[in-house]
Amino acid sequence: MRATTPCLLVDEQKMNRNIARVRERLGAHGVPLRPHVKTAKALEPVARMAGDVTAGITVSTLGEAEFFAEHGYRDILYAVGTAPAKVDRLAALADQGVRVSMFADGPEQVDAIAARAAELGGECEIVIEVDTDDHRAGVSPDGPELLEVAARIDRHASTALRGVATHAGGSYDCRSVDAIRAVAKRERDGAVAAAARLRDAGYTFEMVSVGSTPTATFGESFEGVTEVRAGVFVFQDLVMAGLGVCELDDIALSVMCTVIGHQKHKNWLIVDAGWTALSRDRGTAEQAVDQSYGVVCDEAGRPIEDWVVTSTSQEHGVVTSREGRPLRFESVPVGARLRVLPNHACATASAHAGYHVVDFEGAIADGWSRCQGW
Amino acid sequence: MRATTPCLLVDEQKMNRNIARVRERLGAHGVPLRPHVKTAKALEPVARMAGDVTAGITVSTLGEAEFFAEHGYRDILYAVGTAPAKVDRLAALADQGVRVSMFADGPEQVDAIAARAAELGGECEIVIEVDTDDHRAGVSPDGPELLEVAARIDRHASTALRGVATHAGGSYDCRSVDAIRAVAKRERDGAVAAAARLRDAGYTFEMVSVGSTPTATFGESFEGVTEVRAGVFVFQDLVMAGLGVCELDDIALSVMCTVIGHQKHKNWLIVDAGWTALSRDRGTAEQAVDQSYGVVCDEAGRPIEDWVVTSTSQEHGVVTSREGRPLRFESVPVGARLRVLPNHACATASAHAGYHVVDFEGAIADGWSRCQGW
Repeated sequence: MRATTPCLLVDEQKMNRNIARVRERLGAHGVPLRPHVKTAKALEPVARMAGDVTAGITVSTLGEAEFFAEHGYRDILYAVGTAPAKVDRLAALADQGVRVSMFADGPEQVDAIAARAAELGGECEIVIEVDTDDHRAGVSPDGPELLEVAARIDRHASTALRGVATHAGGSYDCRSVDAIRAVAKRERDGAVAAAARLRDAGYTFEMVSVGSTPTATFGESFEGVTEVRAGVFVFQDLVMAGLGVCELDDIALSVMCTVIGHQKHKNWLIVDAGWTALSRDRGTAEQAVDQSYGVVCDEAGRPIEDWVVTSTSQEHGVVTSREGRPLRFESVPVGARLRVLPNHACATASAHAGYHVVDFEGAIADGWSRCQGW
Repeated sequence: MRATTPCLLVDEQKMNRNIARVRERLGAHGVPLRPHVKTAKALEPVARMAGDVTAGITVSTLGEAEFFAEHGYRDILYAVGTAPAKVDRLAALADQGVRVSMFADGPEQVDAIAARAAELGGECEIVIEVDTDDHRAGVSPDGPELLEVAARIDRHASTALRGVATHAGGSYDCRSVDAIRAVAKRERDGAVAAAARLRDAGYTFEMVSVGSTPTATFGESFEGVTEVRAGVFVFQDLVMAGLGVCELDDIALSVMCTVIGHQKHKNWLIVDAGWTALSRDRGTAEQAVDQSYGVVCDEAGRPIEDWVVTSTSQEHGVVTSREGRPLRFESVPVGARLRVLPNHACATASAHAGYHVVDFEGAIADGWSRCQGW
């Protein structure tokens, strides 16, 4: 198969290895994985992450929830604070027999969800979002809001408490594995402490959910945790490699592109992958090694010297040597194909409608569609 | 209509005004517009930019070329250096009666295009890409490569010279209107000089093409130029406002989102527009006013104080006051809708499958689809 460039490739063998590594690690800790589908957004990778459609999954949009429900998943956690207007579509899934749980982190939010659920004649299961690293949303595990939100869920006939969840998104900014271990401890400790406070106050619930790829990889204890959510590990990326979560050779995702020009006096190659294909993500910008817009590999996926994509416009990428070494232009004539490893798998994948799959023999074979939109 | 958030809105009145302004300016200079479709990628805006399907258009992908050809456009300039493998699809359009022109900036590239065109039994019209601001691709207007490329086009029976084109992409990095005028002069002078050298060498051709939204807006002379290419002006954006190309109130594109949480102790709102909806583009980062991930407006599109989106994750945006003023949380409860003006219209629009159109009465009515993929 000779796909039009730019296009998105997944190396199936690397993907399977990445999945096996995380599943085995969590298995050894005795804690189940609730894979986050937001990175892959495709059936085949998620089926391998989940093991089985009876496993629970995590989604970031209603579009993902509906797509995976349609394909048999029956326990879906919508892990983004719930806009009350979204209750209708979530309730429609519940009506089809899907167990849907949604995040809330404020009393008024619970009231709004409850009001809409009551109008629809259903019940919403709510997971209280807990903030353990100050990076985004959630209530503090030790502040008064945790109990206020729980009381509000309890008060309404149309809402029920499923548990607590936290996400150590701050783990992406760590500078060492020890720092990730510390974030993982805070993530686990915060979730377990929040759960204990709620149980002490008389609430019963099942879920104590934590997770991110870095903390799933390096967390030393999951005691008291009932599940781990993670998604990026399916493909890994340059940010994860920079964190020590994976090696460069583990990255299963790349963008195939074609050389469309030589700017010899600038020591640049021009390729047909710009920010529409690579994304504008610069997640490695603050890491020890800034990978610019991605590491450049040959057509088989082997990194070429110190070549990176240094700038992007809509449909152009500029490739050069990080250290300013002269490019071997004769090795990459106009028409040659290259592959670019992404900074952030979620962002790069989200620019494409699907994947071309590099099979175990290195041939580009099958295609996997991604679910789109919200 | 109550669309699911996040979603993309176009204010039709502002869009029409933006289009009229550029068309009138270029009309006064007596130079036609060849609109670039890469920003809008939708029929209705492009029809208004072009005036008529008989007008020429500019595209950045084969997908755009095929989409607009299917809808009647018959003069299409593919303004990205041509990968030889793409000649097949371009030739297929030519077979349907579309006049297709493609960029090249190297002798070997011309050879590869010519070889494929000869195999297909057709002829390719080539426009020599000229570099007038060292920012990306193209040959120098005064170097030897210009004549080498032209000679190569002339030598092959399967290639013909349509003209020269340049794009002053460096105009996006200007710090003043005077600087944009200087870039516009260099853009025009470089293209005209390249054309003159080729004519002096005996070549005949029609096209001398220049353009970018900033240089189309501020260029003082288009003498010797046969057409101007520009696209962003259709919607305008915060980068253009920062350059002085438009006012904030001219920006016709915004992302509608919903408040999904209050982080009062951090002085943050959480909204359901993350980088999937806004893009990771930080085009204003180096401008006098850094607009972060976008200017926050109320549901009707009026900016709210100094609120901006300061950080994004996949489906979350964090909104706060640039100056750290306390947010009026009571004015934006969970469930309230806001609109975010984008840094870069092309990047933000490219994250969405289509537009919701805000009509002249302010109602959200119609929908326009975008063409997708490559």
